[in-house]
Amino acid sequence: MLVVMQHDATADEVRRVVETIEEMGYQARPIAGAQRTAVGLVGNDGRVDATRLAALRGVKEIIHVTQPYKQVSREWRPEPTVVQLPGGVRIGGSDVVVIAGPCSVESEQQILEAARLVRDGGATLLRGGAFKPRTSPYSFQGLGKKGLKLLARARDETGLLVVTEALDPEGVDTVAEYADVIQVGARSMQNFSLLKRAGRCGKPVLLKRGIAATITELLLSAEYLLAEGNQNVILCERGIRGFDSATRNVFDLTAIPVVKELSHLPIVADPSHGTGRRSKVIPMARAAVAAGADGLLVEVHPQPDRALSDGEQALFPEQFTAMMREVAAIAEAIGRKLAEPAPVGA
Amino acid sequence: MLVVMQHDATADEVRRVVETIEEMGYQARPIAGAQRTAVGLVGNDGRVDATRLAALRGVKEIIHVTQPYKQVSREWRPEPTVVQLPGGVRIGGSDVVVIAGPCSVESEQQILEAARLVRDGGATLLRGGAFKPRTSPYSFQGLGKKGLKLLARARDETGLLVVTEALDPEGVDTVAEYADVIQVGARSMQNFSLLKRAGRCGKPVLLKRGIAATITELLLSAEYLLAEGNQNVILCERGIRGFDSATRNVFDLTAIPVVKELSHLPIVADPSHGTGRRSKVIPMARAAVAAGADGLLVEVHPQPDRALSDGEQALFPEQFTAMMREVAAIAEAIGRKLAEPAPVGA
Amino acid sequence: MLVVMQHDATADEVRRVVETIEEMGYQARPIAGAQRTAVGLVGNDGRVDATRLAALRGVKEIIHVTQPYKQVSREWRPEPTVVQLPGGVRIGGSDVVVIAGPCSVESEQQILEAARLVRDGGATLLRGGAFKPRTSPYSFQGLGKKGLKLLARARDETGLLVVTEALDPEGVDTVAEYADVIQVGARSMQNFSLLKRAGRCGKPVLLKRGIAATITELLLSAEYLLAEGNQNVILCERGIRGFDSATRNVFDLTAIPVVKELSHLPIVADPSHGTGRRSKVIPMARAAVAAGADGLLVEVHPQPDRALSDGEQALFPEQFTAMMREVAAIAEAIGRKLAEPAPVGA
Amino acid sequence: MLVVMQHDATADEVRRVVETIEEMGYQARPIAGAQRTAVGLVGNDGRVDATRLAALRGVKEIIHVTQPYKQVSREWRPEPTVVQLPGGVRIGGSDVVVIAGPCSVESEQQILEAARLVRDGGATLLRGGAFKPRTSPYSFQGLGKKGLKLLARARDETGLLVVTEALDPEGVDTVAEYADVIQVGARSMQNFSLLKRAGRCGKPVLLKRGIAATITELLLSAEYLLAEGNQNVILCERGIRGFDSATRNVFDLTAIPVVKELSHLPIVADPSHGTGRRSKVIPMARAAVAAGADGLLVEVHPQPDRALSDGEQALFPEQFTAMMREVAAIAEAIGRKLAEPAPVGA
Repeated sequence: MLVVMQHDATADEVRRVVETIEEMGYQARPIAGAQRTAVGLVGNDGRVDATRLAALRGVKEIIHVTQPYKQVSREWRPEPTVVQLPGGVRIGGSDVVVIAGPCSVESEQQILEAARLVRDGGATLLRGGAFKPRTSPYSFQGLGKKGLKLLARARDETGLLVVTEALDPEGVDTVAEYADVIQVGARSMQNFSLLKRAGRCGKPVLLKRGIAATITELLLSAEYLLAEGNQNVILCERGIRGFDSATRNVFDLTAIPVVKELSHLPIVADPSHGTGRRSKVIPMARAAVAAGADGLLVEVHPQPDRALSDGEQALFPEQFTAMMREVAAIAEAIGRKLAEPAPVGA
Repeated sequence: MLVVMQHDATADEVRRVVETIEEMGYQARPIAGAQRTAVGLVGNDGRVDATRLAALRGVKEIIHVTQPYKQVSREWRPEPTVVQLPGGVRIGGSDVVVIAGPCSVESEQQILEAARLVRDGGATLLRGGAFKPRTSPYSFQGLGKKGLKLLARARDETGLLVVTEALDPEGVDTVAEYADVIQVGARSMQNFSLLKRAGRCGKPVLLKRGIAATITELLLSAEYLLAEGNQNVILCERGIRGFDSATRNVFDLTAIPVVKELSHLPIVADPSHGTGRRSKVIPMARAAVAAGADGLLVEVHPQPDRALSDGEQALFPEQFTAMMREVAAIAEAIGRKLAEPAPVGA
Repeated sequence: MLVVMQHDATADEVRRVVETIEEMGYQARPIAGAQRTAVGLVGNDGRVDATRLAALRGVKEIIHVTQPYKQVSREWRPEPTVVQLPGGVRIGGSDVVVIAGPCSVESEQQILEAARLVRDGGATLLRGGAFKPRTSPYSFQGLGKKGLKLLARARDETGLLVVTEALDPEGVDTVAEYADVIQVGARSMQNFSLLKRAGRCGKPVLLKRGIAATITELLLSAEYLLAEGNQNVILCERGIRGFDSATRNVFDLTAIPVVKELSHLPIVADPSHGTGRRSKVIPMARAAVAAGADGLLVEVHPQPDRALSDGEQALFPEQFTAMMREVAAIAEAIGRKLAEPAPVGA
Repeated sequence: MLVVMQHDATADEVRRVVETIEEMGYQARPIAGAQRTAVGLVGNDGRVDATRLAALRGVKEIIHVTQPYKQVSREWRPEPTVVQLPGGVRIGGSDVVVIAGPCSVESEQQILEAARLVRDGGATLLRGGAFKPRTSPYSFQGLGKKGLKLLARARDETGLLVVTEALDPEGVDTVAEYADVIQVGARSMQNFSLLKRAGRCGKPVLLKRGIAATITELLLSAEYLLAEGNQNVILCERGIRGFDSATRNVFDLTAIPVVKELSHLPIVADPSHGTGRRSKVIPMARAAVAAGADGLLVEVHPQPDRALSDGEQALFPEQFTAMMREVAAIAEAIGRKLAEPAPVGA
């Protein structure tokens, strides 16, 4: 249950609500949102008599939130969140954004070439890992800070905004210095120290669903970000673990309408990890947009067969062009359109 | 490995191939296909020297089939199979067919009403269970043969072709008497006695993927049908078992491009069972068509809240109309179109 | 809810209960059990006022069954079911039975050799498939009726009781003619036509859990057997589908205490299919007995490397001997002991 | 492939091996182990001609490691690792250790009471979370550093060694100051920054398997620890995500013999998280020991119904006593015994 305070409620009035909740035998948890302050009542609130709380000074309304997450829920905020990025790029509105690029930043030449080709194909944001979470300690771990600088150079040249991953709390600030959107990867979805830091970093966060995470768990991880004051959160479906080796993961596109119903946050889809097979990326990119995704995250590499990581799921340049043409047609069929890239230098 | 015989190969020539394979220490399995006869060489054929076989009289070519299934593979038949139904309805061509109707046939009034509404909405085939596989022995088990007669009556009145399930080998012939397409349900995908009988029944078969079946297993079950001489097989993705109760199943739409790559058989998708939630059916029907499905199988009920089974996933009539409008737009966006219903009385 | 009738209740009294339930707006389902007759009240019985029913003539008591299954539940029958087999073999009591043998009956020599070796090792029952459910139509499908006769011959010679699988309703009676226990395999757990026939066949049934079946679904399939009057049902955990190819299945041993809590039926475990790897069978057989299994079902072959099916999970003869020694020690540690084989000719 | 250097190989000799590998077109990765130095050859080594390397000065032998992990493999070290703890406690030898305690440290009274009761029951180590990874930001997050101090006090009083979790790289050093063994939890199994720091912290690490991790992934995460020089690693099976809500997780005990075959590291099992249901903990603790686990990690709480986290899976004190008696009998049946607690003050 959320006790929403009036816009001009005083600190004393909030404190009185907290005390009343505690007197009633529950825990109180003040939530300072962007537009309004509320006090969450934690515990089984099925049988709580709210009239005593509703009568307190400064209380605007009582919202019964049936889910364990609060601020990410539709009940807390019915209208969709639109994440605003530099240059007028918006995620979560009627536009469908395409975030494209290689799995890893490998060299200056590679990332610039990749950036140009995805920009020419119509992408709005550039993806590319500088810090790579790798299953084996002996695999390429990314270029680190040098990779961040190369991403920034690619942005300067192409105007594409940059999305890249932070792996640990210390890394968040470094990544935030260079990136426009900070990615929290699937393996880190329940890295709560990382989430808390990312919630305070001042940059939008792209939060990927963990490989065996329920939608409720995904939304609770997003709640960590909002609880720290970061409203600019973009969710991402990227496939869950399954039993059939025909694909790398099971791309759970139903997650998109499920999230849309439960939460106001935008959600994008990653058909590259979702399928793990290059030849399946285009049809599943189409399917993701048809299912209502607010954007796509796809791996494209100038030379996929020479990629240092995940080459088998990266699109060839000409495949990316084909994909863009096809998803544009799907977007139009459902009354949306692909986002325009930001003007260079925005 | 398949030793494909020439069109006019004699029984003696086929026998000679079989003997040669056995002399080489392998098992031989003659496969009488619709267009050509072949002899399958069973066992690890990685190191077989095919020159001896290629030199035999009547042998046209040697096909190395890398998969455990043979006749369902693209290697055996590169061009897509188009299943021809009465009245000119075709599944597997450029048209997208919609198969709609209630979970179960419940009464004459219900099935006629359902048939009219899905026909008016643009469906081509009517679905409805007469024999129902139910998890509990105490649940409604279907009207049985009476249900089949009601389906036939609905076909007479609306011109919709009828798809309905057979549960056991004995039931196949009864169902085949009334239905245009015989459904083998998810729970029966590895009911091999049923498959063998369905492979000899003379009617097309709609084979649903089992709840935990790999694509290879699905295709091997289809191979049972083709091995009995039935080329008219339509596959169906209907969701696999997952860990998140937010949906009833995980709707694995990537199965569609995976199947398309490995097999020439058409594949349709069932977003009703795939999601198990009415509010998710429309977006996932769009996604299925965008992913390349040759058709949709959806549950529609005149009064879903009174359904005797699966009411929570059946569309309301007006939702079905909306779905048809939206999937028509998606089909067009990828260069396909919804199939026209067969003329009444066809 | 179950309305349990007195031992001497008349048909009229039962009919009156049925009518009353229907007047109350619910469905009634008479259940003729071995010891007593009851009438099940189907539908959400949370708010039913039972006093009206309890007052009817011939009613002994009202049992509130919270699960969808009725007769298999502990609420219906608190004491454990002990399945009695010929020769005094009992499954579900304090003894732990070992059912062993090859995956398939391959030849007279093979099955006799296998029967002797498992008998000498201490097994009580012989397993061996005559009708084999095979994923591929091109795999060895079993010797059929000839296999049943060979199993009977092995029983005559060794005194081991025979467990073998029936694949379809027609096959049940044939199998019942030769076998002491009829196996319903994992792929057939929801083959309801088969279950209904097996429920009427007069022989005990070993029901294996489906590869993606919940415990509730397993118990509901067992309920089909009891609903047809067959009380002699033995459940079997044999592994569920997982994501890690390190083993063939995930051997879900917790199913054993879960089933024990919910149901009075005995449950055995199959570490051969549960793991799919010969080297894991012995430790997991120990674990199964430690977890409380009433028996083991294990694959043993005189020459596993020459087996026509599942050779990689069959124990070598000397491994079987080692397994028996180790599980005997575990059984003793928890206050049980391995069952004695029936005397030859029993 | 691993090029193992002689005990007295010089830095120059190692460098020459590295250069030769690179000249051959592969990557070289020196691995400084506790007893010997090796140089890993990374890349597909299936076709490498090792004779050139074997001929180099200082090279002792060439080990072909078929797995992606190196130092954790049995091929690298055939004999089992025994982790030595203060007071003579050993994990991985013939003793079975029991690590018990509450989910979270809640108060001084609670942790001291818990410590005494598990000590009296025969546990060797005390578990208890000070930093808790919680799915919801609104759940109790642990007492933090205060919790660590209370754990240290409990050790002082009872002589039990302390195992507790570190959540992030910064936290590792703090935890290492107080704990005897640092736990890396299931959600952190692929938190590679945390693993790297834990690999350098100087304390043994208990690494729990992630909820959807394959055994290969678990071993590769352990490889991160060994690659940083920490040989004292204990693995832990604690259940994987499944589809059946009858249990919280699927307790995959086959992981134990699988790990034993592939790796020399000890492995313990956590039946509390593995099942998530108090009534299933005792049978599954028995099963874990029977399967070959080197120890158990169990949740015990003085008053489970008042626990701040995971109360439904914590044993009552008297249940813990019963469990210890039963697992002692199982350990004995397989030729092992429960470890003795360290003397107080050790």
